[in-house]
Amino acid sequence: MATTLADVKETKDAYVFVVDVPGPRPNMINVKIEEDNVLVVSGERKKEKEKDQGIKYLRMERRLGKYLKKFVLLNNVDIERISAECQDRVLTVTVAKKLPPEQKKPKGAFTNP
Amino acid sequence: MATTLADVKETKDAYVFVVDVPGPRPNMINVKIEEDNVLVVSGERKKEKEKDQGIKYLRMERRLGKYLKKFVLLNNVDIERISAECQDRVLTVTVAKKLPPEQKKPKGAFTNP
Repeated sequence: MATTLADVKETKDAYVFVVDVPGPRPNMINVKIEEDNVLVVSGERKKEKEKDQGIKYLRMERRLGKYLKKFVLLNNVDIERISAECQDRVLTVTVAKKLPPEQKKPKGAFTNP
Repeated sequence: MATTLADVKETKDAYVFVVDVPGPRPNMINVKIEEDNVLVVSGERKKEKEKDQGIKYLRMERRLGKYLKKFVLLNNVDIERISAECQDRVLTVTVAKKLPPEQKKPKGAFTNP
């Protein structure tokens, strides 16, 4: 399993998960919610196709294979309002916090004319 | 010091160094040759500027700071013929192998009319 590193940030309205994804292809990244409160990011770094057939690897540190990262979400998030974008091999998933309950207007309150 | 991982490949004509660079900005990566035979890749991953001022970090695994990677070159390379490109946070440095010495044309050889 390849390694992925992540930062988690909290803003006023959301939690933001920033993940370094190893592969260059955003369409090979899966983002899903499991059991209503676990954010799962997974994918696979595949070997790049070589134009030249006569290539010999002298060193291979950049790990290939599947990667998986899980984050337990707090119960103040709204899992219906999630967005994800990937740029330069950095995946950013934003999970909105629940909106505060709407305050009822006081009945019969005076209004300015 | 942030970690960088690299692959090294040998083709018929060159050695190719493929480095995962941590920062997203290619203009902050330095590539140079030291002591005629050491390829040095260095740079710095800086903290991204936050639009939102009220951000709190809950987790920070993605390391910030300087990184440095050195590769000792074999003596069959031509350090005058080096190229580098960076895409999707992958830096590829190609160092050409020395050309074989030109073979002298045999003197007085017959040529077809």
